[in-house]
Amino acid sequence: VAGIDPPPGLRADARRNRAALLAAARAVFAEQGVDAPLDDVARRAGLGNATLYRHFPTRGELLVAAYAEEVAALCDLGRELLAAPDAGEALFEWLGEFVSHVASKRALAFAITDDAGERATLFGRWHHDMRATVTALLDRARAGGTVRADVDGLDLLALANGIALAGANPDDPAARDRIARLLALVRAGTDPR
Amino acid sequence: VAGIDPPPGLRADARRNRAALLAAARAVFAEQGVDAPLDDVARRAGLGNATLYRHFPTRGELLVAAYAEEVAALCDLGRELLAAPDAGEALFEWLGEFVSHVASKRALAFAITDDAGERATLFGRWHHDMRATVTALLDRARAGGTVRADVDGLDLLALANGIALAGANPDDPAARDRIARLLALVRAGTDPR
Repeated sequence: VAGIDPPPGLRADARRNRAALLAAARAVFAEQGVDAPLDDVARRAGLGNATLYRHFPTRGELLVAAYAEEVAALCDLGRELLAAPDAGEALFEWLGEFVSHVASKRALAFAITDDAGERATLFGRWHHDMRATVTALLDRARAGGTVRADVDGLDLLALANGIALAGANPDDPAARDRIARLLALVRAGTDPR
Repeated sequence: VAGIDPPPGLRADARRNRAALLAAARAVFAEQGVDAPLDDVARRAGLGNATLYRHFPTRGELLVAAYAEEVAALCDLGRELLAAPDAGEALFEWLGEFVSHVASKRALAFAITDDAGERATLFGRWHHDMRATVTALLDRARAGGTVRADVDGLDLLALANGIALAGANPDDPAARDRIARLLALVRAGTDPR
């Protein structure tokens, strides 16, 4: 799918530039919003505008690739957490990060328009990756007996999504406290005892 | 506040007409959306357009009064549930109705604009009534030992709100099943055992 995957056969320096541009884009969009000047992205990456436009000819392609990186980072964290000692703790740590992701990346997700008619395909793939991540963490927690056997991964994602939507601004300390309390309540609801 | 309260000193037949118009408006807005023709509201109430416009000179005033009735009905149900035998069951039955309210009345709530500069006052009053209702139900459930003492009423409202936002269309049976499972998970999380 255009924008998500680096083109095959990219030379090592081009791969490095692409990665630097995406890291810069994620930081700039997070700080200044999704309408930030693309010049700021190139400057932050220490590269010229021509390099930026060679990798991402339109803002739309850069938005898609930046969001794909956010999802990939969240799924990478999930894989790392599969090695954490407490499987229940790992599952809810990841759900906490998922709540932050939904709350803080909504504007980015909404900015992805359907110019290329690929929006549904893209979001289908991202949702699939999120589901696979929560399922792996949940299976491990259930197998270890720290989470009830009848708890459903999609239900946990839906609740975490709801907590993000209801919790409003994650930059507000009171909202962060509330999000933590709500997740603790959900966690208590999954306790097998 | 304009629109919420029937004007004092309204004659009995005028009160009856106002109540019939509001019942008709709630039904018509629920069936046809908030842009439904006002003629349909008058016709459904069995009254003329002149009577409708005498009670509610603008669509905005009718929208405010109809939403106020929705909130009042939900709070009335909460008061009735204070007499239900199982206090924990009563609390979660009400939260289920609150989820339905949020999911099905969102368009109506959004249609209330700030023409008179009263939107914040109106929603402040409605939120206060919802909070008072959940607090009364929760206090009873906590006193009876069916809900943990450290559970917070505003947290329950926030979770129920999130469930409504995440659960999408309440007319979809799969979404309704999910909403019921999510509330059951939250309820398990409030269990003192």
